[in-house]
Amino acid sequence: MDKGTLFGVSVGPGDPELLTLKAVRVIQEADVVAVPVSSGGRTTALDIAREHVGDKPVMRCPTPMSSDPQVLRTTHLAIADQLCAELDQGRNVAYLCLGDVGIYSTFSYVRDLVLQRGYQVQTVPGVPSICAAAATTNAALCTGGETLAIVPAASSKLGSMLNLADATVVMKPGRSLEPLRATLESQGLADDTVVVSRCGMEGERVYRGLDGCPDDLGYFSLALVRPGRDLASSAGTA
Amino acid sequence: MDKGTLFGVSVGPGDPELLTLKAVRVIQEADVVAVPVSSGGRTTALDIAREHVGDKPVMRCPTPMSSDPQVLRTTHLAIADQLCAELDQGRNVAYLCLGDVGIYSTFSYVRDLVLQRGYQVQTVPGVPSICAAAATTNAALCTGGETLAIVPAASSKLGSMLNLADATVVMKPGRSLEPLRATLESQGLADDTVVVSRCGMEGERVYRGLDGCPDDLGYFSLALVRPGRDLASSAGTA
Repeated sequence: MDKGTLFGVSVGPGDPELLTLKAVRVIQEADVVAVPVSSGGRTTALDIAREHVGDKPVMRCPTPMSSDPQVLRTTHLAIADQLCAELDQGRNVAYLCLGDVGIYSTFSYVRDLVLQRGYQVQTVPGVPSICAAAATTNAALCTGGETLAIVPAASSKLGSMLNLADATVVMKPGRSLEPLRATLESQGLADDTVVVSRCGMEGERVYRGLDGCPDDLGYFSLALVRPGRDLASSAGTA
Repeated sequence: MDKGTLFGVSVGPGDPELLTLKAVRVIQEADVVAVPVSSGGRTTALDIAREHVGDKPVMRCPTPMSSDPQVLRTTHLAIADQLCAELDQGRNVAYLCLGDVGIYSTFSYVRDLVLQRGYQVQTVPGVPSICAAAATTNAALCTGGETLAIVPAASSKLGSMLNLADATVVMKPGRSLEPLRATLESQGLADDTVVVSRCGMEGERVYRGLDGCPDDLGYFSLALVRPGRDLASSAGTA
């Protein structure tokens, strides 16, 4: 029996209209849809793509949030095992990824494992949260000859990246804005910052400058920093 | 009469299936579709979205390639004038942008001018070429706590960005690969580089490492540099 193909399908950052035509087709053609399930039982990627999944079998892949390399490795191996068991039955599997699969996704690790085992994998790119956040605020990420940095809030390189790049996206300031606020204020960048939380989801919020921005932004948040571009006072979208 | 709304619509990097459902809807609902026209008369964004434009009026916006700030300013003002003339007639205009509108687009400048004149603008994000290129090569742009830099090949910051970031996308190596090749080789990164040209378009090519990569890559090309990730020998997609 021919083995199935694994498709990594980016479903965009939250708005179901930001799925691509290709994502919709690949989901509809798949035999099985696989979805990451958070520690709290959330299936955000599935929620976004729900109307295209129909009554197809859904494989739930537990994806606990952890920074422990051993926990992560065990998680990735377990997901690869789940997926390969379906592929071995000749079924094509669409694994749904929040945002774009190339940017901080669990699927990147799983894909490498599945490829190493000799299966076919195809990847469908999508709209990353950074592009959706820029669009929501009617702002550019970069123009002309500018450089752009994408940096996790917890990275030890945050300060040097903010210093070197013309614009920076700080990913997942998350449960405490204070360390990021301190870094931005020390580099004189607080007024050049726009924070977007839950972009394209229910409860979306935009904060221009850091005044009034709550300390706990939740998981789905990022900060756009573009010095001298007066982001904090630019016009918003309708 | 109410003024029309300007929509900046990202159409993705080349594959017509990478339009989002929202892009398709906004194009179909618009009264007029505006498209950038290159010096050579190419209308790449229109070609990508063609089947959704139907027999709608198409406004052609000359967009000469130039790095002269005066030429660019004149171009942006002329496009803003064209668009505002339609908006003044109460017509909604969808301006098509290659890739994602937040990343190196002419529309970013035009949007600022149109917003300054008091019109409503809404932006539809899309799939950027960097995400499509990563997907085509089954590679991650960044994972875990990594940092990612996006740098034009001609930037004076290229060397320092390559040095600082965990991964780098070099945009538009273009008509001559030689300066980029020299920089990558001097930093020992040539083998960690994958070059993708015409991603998702007719004539797409992927070069792992810089061996065999032609000097003239054309306009639609970029290089992914991810040290130590063995990109040059990783498995490709079907």
